[in-house]
Amino acid sequence: MDFGTAEKSVGESCGVFGMYDLDGGNVASTIYYGLYALQHRGQESAGIAVTNTFNGKGKVDCHKGLGRVNEVFHEKDLTALKGNLGVGHVRYSTAGGSTHENSQPLVLAYIKGTLMLAHNGNLVNTPELRRDLAMNGAIFQTTIDTETIAYHIARERVKSSSVQEATVRALKKVKGSYSLVIASPRKLIGARDPWGFRPLVIGKTGNSYIITSENCALETINAKFVRDVLPGEVVTINADGSIESNLDLALPPEKTSRCVFEYIYFCRPDTVFDGMSVTRSRIIAGKLLAKVKPVEADLVVGVPESGNMAAIGYSRESGIPYGIAFTKNTYVGRTFIKPQQSSRVQSVKVKLNVLREVVEGKRIIVIDDSIVRGTTSDQFVTMLKNAGAKEVHMRVSSPPFYHPCYFGIDIPNEDQLIAHGRSVDEICKIIGADSLAYLPIENLPELSGGLNICNACFSGNYPIAPPTEDIRGEYIK
Amino acid sequence: MDFGTAEKSVGESCGVFGMYDLDGGNVASTIYYGLYALQHRGQESAGIAVTNTFNGKGKVDCHKGLGRVNEVFHEKDLTALKGNLGVGHVRYSTAGGSTHENSQPLVLAYIKGTLMLAHNGNLVNTPELRRDLAMNGAIFQTTIDTETIAYHIARERVKSSSVQEATVRALKKVKGSYSLVIASPRKLIGARDPWGFRPLVIGKTGNSYIITSENCALETINAKFVRDVLPGEVVTINADGSIESNLDLALPPEKTSRCVFEYIYFCRPDTVFDGMSVTRSRIIAGKLLAKVKPVEADLVVGVPESGNMAAIGYSRESGIPYGIAFTKNTYVGRTFIKPQQSSRVQSVKVKLNVLREVVEGKRIIVIDDSIVRGTTSDQFVTMLKNAGAKEVHMRVSSPPFYHPCYFGIDIPNEDQLIAHGRSVDEICKIIGADSLAYLPIENLPELSGGLNICNACFSGNYPIAPPTEDIRGEYIK
Amino acid sequence: MDFGTAEKSVGESCGVFGMYDLDGGNVASTIYYGLYALQHRGQESAGIAVTNTFNGKGKVDCHKGLGRVNEVFHEKDLTALKGNLGVGHVRYSTAGGSTHENSQPLVLAYIKGTLMLAHNGNLVNTPELRRDLAMNGAIFQTTIDTETIAYHIARERVKSSSVQEATVRALKKVKGSYSLVIASPRKLIGARDPWGFRPLVIGKTGNSYIITSENCALETINAKFVRDVLPGEVVTINADGSIESNLDLALPPEKTSRCVFEYIYFCRPDTVFDGMSVTRSRIIAGKLLAKVKPVEADLVVGVPESGNMAAIGYSRESGIPYGIAFTKNTYVGRTFIKPQQSSRVQSVKVKLNVLREVVEGKRIIVIDDSIVRGTTSDQFVTMLKNAGAKEVHMRVSSPPFYHPCYFGIDIPNEDQLIAHGRSVDEICKIIGADSLAYLPIENLPELSGGLNICNACFSGNYPIAPPTEDIRGEYIK
Amino acid sequence: MDFGTAEKSVGESCGVFGMYDLDGGNVASTIYYGLYALQHRGQESAGIAVTNTFNGKGKVDCHKGLGRVNEVFHEKDLTALKGNLGVGHVRYSTAGGSTHENSQPLVLAYIKGTLMLAHNGNLVNTPELRRDLAMNGAIFQTTIDTETIAYHIARERVKSSSVQEATVRALKKVKGSYSLVIASPRKLIGARDPWGFRPLVIGKTGNSYIITSENCALETINAKFVRDVLPGEVVTINADGSIESNLDLALPPEKTSRCVFEYIYFCRPDTVFDGMSVTRSRIIAGKLLAKVKPVEADLVVGVPESGNMAAIGYSRESGIPYGIAFTKNTYVGRTFIKPQQSSRVQSVKVKLNVLREVVEGKRIIVIDDSIVRGTTSDQFVTMLKNAGAKEVHMRVSSPPFYHPCYFGIDIPNEDQLIAHGRSVDEICKIIGADSLAYLPIENLPELSGGLNICNACFSGNYPIAPPTEDIRGEYIK
Repeated sequence: MDFGTAEKSVGESCGVFGMYDLDGGNVASTIYYGLYALQHRGQESAGIAVTNTFNGKGKVDCHKGLGRVNEVFHEKDLTALKGNLGVGHVRYSTAGGSTHENSQPLVLAYIKGTLMLAHNGNLVNTPELRRDLAMNGAIFQTTIDTETIAYHIARERVKSSSVQEATVRALKKVKGSYSLVIASPRKLIGARDPWGFRPLVIGKTGNSYIITSENCALETINAKFVRDVLPGEVVTINADGSIESNLDLALPPEKTSRCVFEYIYFCRPDTVFDGMSVTRSRIIAGKLLAKVKPVEADLVVGVPESGNMAAIGYSRESGIPYGIAFTKNTYVGRTFIKPQQSSRVQSVKVKLNVLREVVEGKRIIVIDDSIVRGTTSDQFVTMLKNAGAKEVHMRVSSPPFYHPCYFGIDIPNEDQLIAHGRSVDEICKIIGADSLAYLPIENLPELSGGLNICNACFSGNYPIAPPTEDIRGEYIK
Repeated sequence: MDFGTAEKSVGESCGVFGMYDLDGGNVASTIYYGLYALQHRGQESAGIAVTNTFNGKGKVDCHKGLGRVNEVFHEKDLTALKGNLGVGHVRYSTAGGSTHENSQPLVLAYIKGTLMLAHNGNLVNTPELRRDLAMNGAIFQTTIDTETIAYHIARERVKSSSVQEATVRALKKVKGSYSLVIASPRKLIGARDPWGFRPLVIGKTGNSYIITSENCALETINAKFVRDVLPGEVVTINADGSIESNLDLALPPEKTSRCVFEYIYFCRPDTVFDGMSVTRSRIIAGKLLAKVKPVEADLVVGVPESGNMAAIGYSRESGIPYGIAFTKNTYVGRTFIKPQQSSRVQSVKVKLNVLREVVEGKRIIVIDDSIVRGTTSDQFVTMLKNAGAKEVHMRVSSPPFYHPCYFGIDIPNEDQLIAHGRSVDEICKIIGADSLAYLPIENLPELSGGLNICNACFSGNYPIAPPTEDIRGEYIK
Repeated sequence: MDFGTAEKSVGESCGVFGMYDLDGGNVASTIYYGLYALQHRGQESAGIAVTNTFNGKGKVDCHKGLGRVNEVFHEKDLTALKGNLGVGHVRYSTAGGSTHENSQPLVLAYIKGTLMLAHNGNLVNTPELRRDLAMNGAIFQTTIDTETIAYHIARERVKSSSVQEATVRALKKVKGSYSLVIASPRKLIGARDPWGFRPLVIGKTGNSYIITSENCALETINAKFVRDVLPGEVVTINADGSIESNLDLALPPEKTSRCVFEYIYFCRPDTVFDGMSVTRSRIIAGKLLAKVKPVEADLVVGVPESGNMAAIGYSRESGIPYGIAFTKNTYVGRTFIKPQQSSRVQSVKVKLNVLREVVEGKRIIVIDDSIVRGTTSDQFVTMLKNAGAKEVHMRVSSPPFYHPCYFGIDIPNEDQLIAHGRSVDEICKIIGADSLAYLPIENLPELSGGLNICNACFSGNYPIAPPTEDIRGEYIK
Repeated sequence: MDFGTAEKSVGESCGVFGMYDLDGGNVASTIYYGLYALQHRGQESAGIAVTNTFNGKGKVDCHKGLGRVNEVFHEKDLTALKGNLGVGHVRYSTAGGSTHENSQPLVLAYIKGTLMLAHNGNLVNTPELRRDLAMNGAIFQTTIDTETIAYHIARERVKSSSVQEATVRALKKVKGSYSLVIASPRKLIGARDPWGFRPLVIGKTGNSYIITSENCALETINAKFVRDVLPGEVVTINADGSIESNLDLALPPEKTSRCVFEYIYFCRPDTVFDGMSVTRSRIIAGKLLAKVKPVEADLVVGVPESGNMAAIGYSRESGIPYGIAFTKNTYVGRTFIKPQQSSRVQSVKVKLNVLREVVEGKRIIVIDDSIVRGTTSDQFVTMLKNAGAKEVHMRVSSPPFYHPCYFGIDIPNEDQLIAHGRSVDEICKIIGADSLAYLPIENLPELSGGLNICNACFSGNYPIAPPTEDIRGEYIK
């Protein structure tokens, strides 16, 4: 298919945060702190939209922009956002062009007033959906799935008695992953796709309700966790504080498929995803790894920060002492000027150094949560050896990546994956380790505490058929 | 009607610039210089969108933002815009919220690919139009008329054989002022409303065609003026260089009504609007004023810069010498910090000073092109008197403002107009002049060289019935 | 002499503004507006330093930076400057590196507390002075003359009974041009070199005294002009409001030599320099030019803005009508992106356009205040001809530049001056005019109303022997 | 003593980095990466100055500014710094005003050309030194000790045969702490005070020599550690690669007194300070703490990041498992908008959260390296308890702070120290822990591996008599 048509759009793994203060207090500032807690889910853009449900007449104030929460929002921006119902969003950097137009929340006016939407996920039937809409005269100003969803809600709203009914009817048409928060002029709605790919939780603080991606965002703002939004559930918070639940979209539990990579890497360590603590999940991964992939050594260390919890698990199971082998330079940020090719200085050494004191003369087990391209693993192993480590054994607390993800995790093309077409031994040789082992795919279910998971990026078994055409929309940059 | 619905949007007086290089050269840089020449038509936002008609597959690159051309575009932004067909826009600051979303060009994907639109003008039947669209499930992401027009083109396109046909059909539904440039993937279209409120011209340089608001933009980029787009004409530049003209919308000449304020103030002095030189128009206004409102004096001076041409006309007609009485501080820009109330320093004195040497002991005629609120006229008169002028006679080269404009000129509410409910004598007293006189409304036709004009802001005679409901859309800020 | 020694420093033509509120009110905000009025004297850097003479214990708050007043100062910077005695400075862009270190005012601590200095001018014996200081262990942190002056004041202060006495003793050692304002913890001092090269005036508003470069700065802040600081005078404003005058440095009037280029170009039109109105001076120059260099023509126009006053003078003397031939694009600022060589667009056309309506078919006299390199004159003539002027006669209201200035005016090297080694006819041919004439050097005395002037840049007759070694200090960039 | 005199200046704990490429290669880029490695020593300002020793004629290029390395330097700044000999500096934020003028390196011209200086430390006899200089006519443009040192070098240089001789003679006059790098036009000099308060090391890469604060900066740029600069040593790198050592200032080893807080907190974990690994020092501190202050518990955790190493030591000695109890939000940076008082959101929770999974139901030992004001300790204990910890036992790997530091560590006034006038039990109650214990002062010598240390902040035993007057210079802000 050609570019330059109305048929494509993209989704991504993002963070969403909706809040409704039933007493009328301003919510923008709390949303801002909530987005800080979700920043790990996306650093490409950030935005907050709010409305006043008491006397705002549906008027929406919105501020969004490219960059992180602290880059996008200055004090005056936050102060200018007046309203007791609002929606915030942080977006993950994907291959597609990152533009202001693609920033969320998406704010729009439709037959019943204004609507604000924030979406985490990725639809797989977007081309069909957009083609149909365009045939009826629709125009698209962004390349994000959220716009497609919004159009369907608007179309259904004309024939529905409520916005939540329109939402359910609209979502029946879309296929893929979504954790969605929507603010209509007087309601806060949360929706999670039937497979439950991404997390979505309900919280409460004072007389305010929150629907957000991870419960770490609730903890950050001192709100109480109420419950998870269920896979396939559409939840509506009404102005009187009543909560409606609609499960028309829900599948039987055995058909759900939570993204296992949320447990392995994506979620913040203080999050509990569908009842399973992410930190516990990672410690378990480390313990399993120690059981099934043991090796004699003097010290277990983690690749900072993502490998530390699994390293503690490995240490506890194996009895080999845990240590801290790396010191990270926290001052190296976005504006770091990369050393030129000709320079003797390497980027990685500016960002990170090995503690010779800790590793010299020792046999080291180094744990990481995953290997994607393999380039950083190579650097870590070399640095450990240069600092005097006698042996370096790499252990990875997830299986090798072989397949693309269509549901919101940004995994590079297959040919950039180090595991693609290579045996573990070959990979081990490339990264220069004395041994290498991955967590077997059979052990993954223990990471979710037994809940159904999606492991397609490791196994290729997709819970929904992957799209048959390229779904990347790039016609507007 | 309430706010918070999909029914409202706003237009404004802006500058538009479309360019099509049939040989495939990049046009963004030339559009940039063209927008500089149109900057007087709008300083609120600026934007350029381009596409490559040879191999771009309809992909559009767009850069826009709040501020002036020089604030919005940095060298890298310009370099990143690759394409031989494009559209640029500068927007005038109106009462409505100025947001990124409302910046133009509007870029969108529809059934036939991408579309870029830039609009100068103001529709008066927007609420009806948007209500109809919303009833069919439309969503609105901006509050500008351009989106309404775009929707109609998209809807008509489904049933039309070409984009220009769809444009004509769409424009049949809208009422109000518009000078529009549209780039479809392989065509450049210009459209001017049947009344011809705002200027729109065609130019050529090398093998490139341009459609833009004023011919001063053509001069700036060394392009040749080809002809005016006619009131009610839709002009299409095709990829083979052929030009199509459609006059289905045109009215008989006596029904056209050019905005006389374009001659008086809005256009740049080096522009020729529908065959009449704006500079000649202003000198004529000064001469007429001298004829019908003479006064004995020693010197004629203009309020800089807008009153200078009329002052020269007045001087020539009356034989009273012309002088320069004011020195302007060109360094006082946007970031000027206004003096506090308590300060002895006045803003106006930082920006402008009277040359005592020139005015001391003299009877001065001071010419301005118009008086809106009257506050600055008051300051000018006071400053002249403080600098020793014996008498100060104010002459205004247009009639008094009494009525709002619905077609794109930003005139404040009636109760802020100094002429509202006051006689000329009362105004004279308020501004402290020794005498005051305006150009009579009967003389206005001479300013356009006899072409039909709209003088509704002075007379209240609107060529189209003004809207019956508030058309300001403010639901998204 | 080599670079990299302590012996060199540079001066330049700048604007200075000192203010002392005897009642204790804050002066920073008024200084800020005063600097706006002096911005034409320098756009390279700006700064304000203030102290509180009542309870500040000599503590100085200072804010300075590279750029114009509006770029350097934001509201919070101004608010942070608390004090009733202060000094401000704007610096002219010269060939030497423009750095924060070289920004003024210079603030320092010495034996008697703190000192703030702002200097307009250029010393010619700096190398000797700095060499002597360095031999005694001095260190130099800038390359500006002000530091050399400050060192001498500090050295003399040890042996003097007052700071003004030390200032006089220090200034006896320096040779060159200086208009200087100094704030010691409880005094405001102004000093003007014996030749009186640059202007310096005293003003008053309420119970505040001001010493500043031009009286236009007094008008801007609604202060009254008290008198000029005399050539060779050191004036001291004491805390009790008494004014001391010291004339130890003064020369007999026939030895003074005001810079004639201050009248011709440098001063603002509303300034009166040593009793002679700058505007009158320029109108006289135009009249003289009409008398001595007449030509038959239809219209007299000025090169904006610098040639306008002389054009009015020429018009009045010759009886040929005055017109406005150019329209300037005031939006083209610092961040303007220059067109590439390959572009059909020329910078000059973006900045300025000729009004064809005004010049077409006419014989035009175009007046400029001076020709330096000749490149812009060439462009103006070409543009006028392209717009249909039948003849273009260039008249210049000053003589040709042949010689460098060592006293603060930034004139390029001789070989870049178009008049260098060329006859007037040759220059006329280069710029493409039909005729060209300059104001003869004999007429210059009329421009200052008979006061002694320096015309060295035209005549080569320097009132002080020029330096024998390169005085540009560049060891610190 | 009053403010507003020339007698005061301030020093601080900073990072210094000098580099000399004998082959003529540019050093600015390598210094930049070196400063990144020293960023923990100061985030208030950063700067680099360089000169070309082959053909630069002593000209110095310098770029410095307020903020961190990544904020101060953009690619073009780095590219503009051409030279093979240079000096860099990062400055610690102290109470004194942070201004551009106080940024380092200090660059100056003196009798023998240019000099660049960067200083880490704090002099205690500055008032006397500056008073003497001022009596001889010195002027001070900063409030930093470096300027005082520079003046003395300049004065001595007049009577000395070399800059290193002048440096030794100058340093004989100053008392206090200094680790200094100086670049004279063709030499790189390093000097460390006789007590050896702060670290200073020599490194080499290719044919380049480096003198810098910590060897972690050498590792970062892939340079080899050569040796420590000795307490009281002045080291000179000559253009021919020869190294001179002067020990005229040196004291007997038993009189040296390294700052023990460099081991405890200040140095980066991968630094070796005078032969003792800082990481080993911290693990030892944890082990000692476990031996002398044991307590029964289920888990040992560190306050991130500063308490982690000691926590590992405590865990190893006690046999109680080590865990990670906190997750840090690394996205909370400088531009974080603090929650308002009225908000339910607390800053600390946005920055950091406890992992309930890890601590719930457990008895926790939490280790920090020091307690200053006690406010954060209070928050940590509360957060652990709120997350379900059964008991919280705080252990501190240094003694309580009682006394100010005059040698470069920024410890608040006594009355802000929680230990001031309170027993350990009282502090324990304030922070809400179940028990609290500090490392006894007797154990400190083990932290430096037996080398002589300064423990004055804990003991009040100052190796040099503290200053008798206030040495904070604040006359210029």
